[in-house]
Amino acid sequence: MQTLWEQRYAQRTQRIKSSTIRELLKFAEQRDIISFAGGMPAPEAFPLQEFEDAAHRVIAQLDGAAFQYSSTDGYLPLRDMIARHTSRFGLDITAENILITSGSQQGLDLLGRIFINPGDRIVVEEPTYLGALQAWNAYGAEYVTVPVDENGMEMDALEDALRTGPKFIYVLPNFQNPSGVTLSAVRRLRLVELANHHGVPIIEDDPYGQLRYEGKHIPAVANLDKRGRDDCELCYRGNVIYLSTFSKLLAPGLRVAWIVAAPEVIQKLVQAKQGADLQTATFNQMLVYEVAREGFLDRHVKTLRDLYRTRRDAMLTALEEHFPTAVRWTHPEGGLFLWVTLPEGLDTTDLLVPALEERVAFVPGGAFHANGGGANTMRLNFSNANPQQIHEGITRLGKVLEGALEEVIVTP
Amino acid sequence: MQTLWEQRYAQRTQRIKSSTIRELLKFAEQRDIISFAGGMPAPEAFPLQEFEDAAHRVIAQLDGAAFQYSSTDGYLPLRDMIARHTSRFGLDITAENILITSGSQQGLDLLGRIFINPGDRIVVEEPTYLGALQAWNAYGAEYVTVPVDENGMEMDALEDALRTGPKFIYVLPNFQNPSGVTLSAVRRLRLVELANHHGVPIIEDDPYGQLRYEGKHIPAVANLDKRGRDDCELCYRGNVIYLSTFSKLLAPGLRVAWIVAAPEVIQKLVQAKQGADLQTATFNQMLVYEVAREGFLDRHVKTLRDLYRTRRDAMLTALEEHFPTAVRWTHPEGGLFLWVTLPEGLDTTDLLVPALEERVAFVPGGAFHANGGGANTMRLNFSNANPQQIHEGITRLGKVLEGALEEVIVTP
Repeated sequence: MQTLWEQRYAQRTQRIKSSTIRELLKFAEQRDIISFAGGMPAPEAFPLQEFEDAAHRVIAQLDGAAFQYSSTDGYLPLRDMIARHTSRFGLDITAENILITSGSQQGLDLLGRIFINPGDRIVVEEPTYLGALQAWNAYGAEYVTVPVDENGMEMDALEDALRTGPKFIYVLPNFQNPSGVTLSAVRRLRLVELANHHGVPIIEDDPYGQLRYEGKHIPAVANLDKRGRDDCELCYRGNVIYLSTFSKLLAPGLRVAWIVAAPEVIQKLVQAKQGADLQTATFNQMLVYEVAREGFLDRHVKTLRDLYRTRRDAMLTALEEHFPTAVRWTHPEGGLFLWVTLPEGLDTTDLLVPALEERVAFVPGGAFHANGGGANTMRLNFSNANPQQIHEGITRLGKVLEGALEEVIVTP
Repeated sequence: MQTLWEQRYAQRTQRIKSSTIRELLKFAEQRDIISFAGGMPAPEAFPLQEFEDAAHRVIAQLDGAAFQYSSTDGYLPLRDMIARHTSRFGLDITAENILITSGSQQGLDLLGRIFINPGDRIVVEEPTYLGALQAWNAYGAEYVTVPVDENGMEMDALEDALRTGPKFIYVLPNFQNPSGVTLSAVRRLRLVELANHHGVPIIEDDPYGQLRYEGKHIPAVANLDKRGRDDCELCYRGNVIYLSTFSKLLAPGLRVAWIVAAPEVIQKLVQAKQGADLQTATFNQMLVYEVAREGFLDRHVKTLRDLYRTRRDAMLTALEEHFPTAVRWTHPEGGLFLWVTLPEGLDTTDLLVPALEERVAFVPGGAFHANGGGANTMRLNFSNANPQQIHEGITRLGKVLEGALEEVIVTP
């Protein structure tokens, strides 16, 4: 007799459902499909020559350190560099505040691991980042959702949500994945105030903060948390745990990201990471450090901004031209995504197969809703296709939407 | 007011203790200390030129694929290569049976995540791999221990342990970390028989299987599980989940390892990995594939065997010369470690500070005991020091042991 695996899984494994959408989206990888489904950077912007030169320098270190085990908290020169960079943006921290993670997805997982008891409530935006839900479902999290409008999380709804006694607030303030909206400066201050009032810490997830294509930079939520320290404007208070990554600035295929937190939280995270994967690859941490350290990153980010601004604009223009008037979408000031809302009653999941038949792909928005809803929404990525492809893809998708809307009108 | 983090951690975080030993062992990294504490390969054996050439080829791929996101299950050519390699060793599997993990530590974590409910019992060897305990403690595992002698897990004790209704049996059959002992062929067959009889799956952890310095290769436990399939000698039955890694064969700093399991288990692991770190670094998987694919790995393993055999022999010789006669140790046929047992009543934890003062380090054995005990044991690594260092280090450690033994005799 064979092992009956279905009988042996942990309860938390029952929460992991195989997803029809995920299966369908595998088709989106086919070469002739124009995919707005993923969250992938433009590969033509990867700095291949810089990686090659850096790899040469890192490997040439005679003691083979790049290929050896290294410490769980991360490569110290890289942590120092991130600390200096963060300080430049107005938050005084040191390497002690930083843990290197194997992508921000691992950061979310480790935070779930050290904080979430089964049944703990987490305040999340509606919609929110799907990967955070995937990470925290494994620890038995429950969610309290706060709607998002064009200025981010709605503060009155947040105030209500905080009355449920949540473990923490999870927010993506810049060009949010999936909606593309940005939390306004006024609301950031209010968020900090409310969080402090209720004594609830914040997890600020900021993968795209530097990829702004218009408007002025708004300080991170972590920078705004100043309570009780008027004497020290740049001090890091620790109540906001901040995550960012090199995935969108350099390359996601290296899996190097970081968490900023109070040293005592970093220590717990380090212990959790020992059990999770021991350490992030030494070679990759050194590679990122070598590429980023001499000011290359600043120049590269400028290139990315120009590239992605053009693509965002191409998508916005195409949407105006080819999407039915009953359909609305966000105007992101940065990041990789925009968010489309169809009239109520339409379900974007039903449109995925017709869209794939037209050789274009998107992600139905329901998956980004922690507690259901959002059937009439979809996420579109604009970083991974060039302007011609964007124009062609939106034209095709527009036809699918036209068809769906007509059907609704014909069969009410 | 600051967040009182201590109040906010999950219950599972309480099980993570900060370890005095871990703190002490940080001293072992100092340059003038001869450390037998880590489990590090010899860095001088890392194939730097091969890595450099492979990095060049991988980066030169025009589409930047090495730096892009890739699938959670792993790089298909690498999974195919591992499947071919495993088939060569007598187990017919395909890429569908393989998940690439970010080191074997992640493999252990993901297995814990999909299988372990709080309170579930796991059968482990006594002593066993510390990292497995670290991974599974986070999921609330309890342990049933089975003593190990010079032929590995004791089968009568295993039979008793199986009566407790465990979730799975965890075994390191080859040159076990920490004890260095090997599970005999006879016992492997008995293990499979007992596991089948009780309907309990096995997790076989085999990081060192190819690093054998004497004696004949013994088939993996996964290869011996043939029940009900006399028609198909090489078929993989799936009841034994098998883990291995490139950490000891190529380099641990790349964090590339793999799990072999039934396709349905692999699918659950893939879903768990999506939440844990999305994917193992694309670049690293391609790098390992490029280095390993043209037969280099076989040649390189021969080099490693010669190198480590010499070091093992140097340590065994030095132990004979410099350790007190009341002390016993194992004679590993491969791997990286041997295991030292002092007379009862001595506590190796007490010897760590004196040893560090003599500029030599080891790991006290207690940490490898899931349910306590083993105070009079220690683990010694022989792969990371050269023969001269080994001789000098064992001489120093011998003195520390002599001193401790004298003290026991003087103050009974």
